[in-house]
Amino acid sequence: MIALLDYTSQVQRLDDKAMAEAKSIQDSLTKPNGSLGRLENLSVQLAGIYRTPYPEVRRKVVFTMAADHGVAAEGVSAYPSAVTAQMVLNFARGGAAINVLARKAGAVVRVVDIGVASDMDWPEGVLSRKVAKGSANMARGPALTNEQATEALLIGAELASEAADSGVNAIAIGDMGIGNTTAASAITAVMTGRPVADVTGRGTGVDDSVLSLKIKVIEKALEVNRLDSSDGFDVLSKVGGLEIAGLAGIAIGAASRGVPVFLDGFVSSSAALIASAICPDCREYMIASHVSVEPGHRYALEHLALEPVLDLGMRLGEGTGAALAFFIAEAACRIINEMATFDSAGVSRSDKEMTE
Amino acid sequence: MIALLDYTSQVQRLDDKAMAEAKSIQDSLTKPNGSLGRLENLSVQLAGIYRTPYPEVRRKVVFTMAADHGVAAEGVSAYPSAVTAQMVLNFARGGAAINVLARKAGAVVRVVDIGVASDMDWPEGVLSRKVAKGSANMARGPALTNEQATEALLIGAELASEAADSGVNAIAIGDMGIGNTTAASAITAVMTGRPVADVTGRGTGVDDSVLSLKIKVIEKALEVNRLDSSDGFDVLSKVGGLEIAGLAGIAIGAASRGVPVFLDGFVSSSAALIASAICPDCREYMIASHVSVEPGHRYALEHLALEPVLDLGMRLGEGTGAALAFFIAEAACRIINEMATFDSAGVSRSDKEMTE
Repeated sequence: MIALLDYTSQVQRLDDKAMAEAKSIQDSLTKPNGSLGRLENLSVQLAGIYRTPYPEVRRKVVFTMAADHGVAAEGVSAYPSAVTAQMVLNFARGGAAINVLARKAGAVVRVVDIGVASDMDWPEGVLSRKVAKGSANMARGPALTNEQATEALLIGAELASEAADSGVNAIAIGDMGIGNTTAASAITAVMTGRPVADVTGRGTGVDDSVLSLKIKVIEKALEVNRLDSSDGFDVLSKVGGLEIAGLAGIAIGAASRGVPVFLDGFVSSSAALIASAICPDCREYMIASHVSVEPGHRYALEHLALEPVLDLGMRLGEGTGAALAFFIAEAACRIINEMATFDSAGVSRSDKEMTE
Repeated sequence: MIALLDYTSQVQRLDDKAMAEAKSIQDSLTKPNGSLGRLENLSVQLAGIYRTPYPEVRRKVVFTMAADHGVAAEGVSAYPSAVTAQMVLNFARGGAAINVLARKAGAVVRVVDIGVASDMDWPEGVLSRKVAKGSANMARGPALTNEQATEALLIGAELASEAADSGVNAIAIGDMGIGNTTAASAITAVMTGRPVADVTGRGTGVDDSVLSLKIKVIEKALEVNRLDSSDGFDVLSKVGGLEIAGLAGIAIGAASRGVPVFLDGFVSSSAALIASAICPDCREYMIASHVSVEPGHRYALEHLALEPVLDLGMRLGEGTGAALAFFIAEAACRIINEMATFDSAGVSRSDKEMTE
């Protein structure tokens, strides 16, 4: 964990002055104050992150991290574990939803094998950073060793830092891993203090009987593993997963370099819960791209005090919601950079006191 | 109204076969069924509109129609009427929010003076289709004569039809007009049967005392004008406005040419209430881009049975929410056109019954 301090110690608080200036510019533009709603808030947050009143989203990357989960052996998913590796190949060939949406958003997808069970030789384009062939079954003991969790966190932080070095200034975190909503539910239950049943959903689409099995498996995992909810690293190791650790590392690494992190769905947000427990200042760099239909997602975002940008009834992961939110964030920045002011456009201001 | 029949009579029901095929393609793509939520529904609706299972949004136009409102003399807005013309100039110069967001979305903005009070010589780029120098004060009598309402409807329908001729296949309808949320509230109250106080908001940002005056003015307008809520044209003439009539005409003209209409905010949606009352089949061509913070907007969309795509706390009009929704609709089409199927990608299907 000492190496991670190199990153956490570099996370600055947002730039208040840039945020105040951005707010003041927003109020000078030819529109009623506050009338662009969430776009205005987003532009102010990005001003604080980029430390300039004129924020600009430039190079965008989606990190889609894949790993397998020992807990899948309990029968908690609608799909077989083999799908994790098959989807990595699909990402590499550009045929998955995240490839399509990232292309549309002008973002690059970087696929990372951080813990896929299969020993496949990946085609070019897949980053091999395999920490282990999947996590252990959390219903029987810790999902990860401390060493594995640390290594995966560092891999994520390094990837984010390297991306920042190459000019990337917006990072989305997406996931692929059969069984990973089980891990996300366990993390969310522990970190938010909610009952397991409240934060557990159908994942890829399990039926009622599998859903009730999934809840029992998570309850068992929380019993078997003695968790310290105040210790994000402990929770991550015991009921997390390798892609969740990697994504938490990316969130920390991005924040350490002044780069916003676009959370995606439930799994990605469970990684954000871990990252902000390990490094509370990271939270200000997070943008909740959307809220999914997984019931635990809403609670995770509430715990992070993040308001989702989109609510499109999605529940796919991979980074898909985050790719769509890139567009909204860019639009928010364009407003502050390109709109005319009341003075420059010769438009009369409100002749009555504004109420917002 | 006879000339309008040339348009309304051309509106086809959506293509059920193309929609069923699009749904079936969605279910073959490498993702759990339904996991892209609203994107999947949107792609199916667009398949029905474009009459192909592989819908594509190509050329996109935002029509931003501007008009003044006699009812502004009652003091219902936070801004002086002069702002309508000033904003038309701002649109022409590219400095308004709609210009910025349309550029980002790759859409063209067409600004139409359909009833601005000022007799300004517009710069190039502003379409002069002035029916009158604003509407009359609806608190004292009908806002429009039947002839004015008919003319404005036809102007809108013709503009949409001409756009379709030039290859445009997605149209957004946006508004500019000081006082126009007063007209939109009056229309929404009549068409939905809701009390005026439920559907009246702060518009550009009026304070409590102006809000209560605005409600009284609308109640008076509904008293003074004897309205037939079953007759969309009657409601439009008596408590509408010229841009609202023009936008309703665009909605009808677009549907007659098989082009989807992206509604924007509250004013635009009040035009949609009128259009769908005049021509019920138009409704299927409408996409509710977003829901604004104007309280009446939600009721108008409910009445139209349309689910908003975005909820970003916006309340600006001009077409701004619709420009953002263009992106989501394009993303939805890209999914169906570009994603791999389970078979083509060699990904295993669910091994359990799916519940959706």
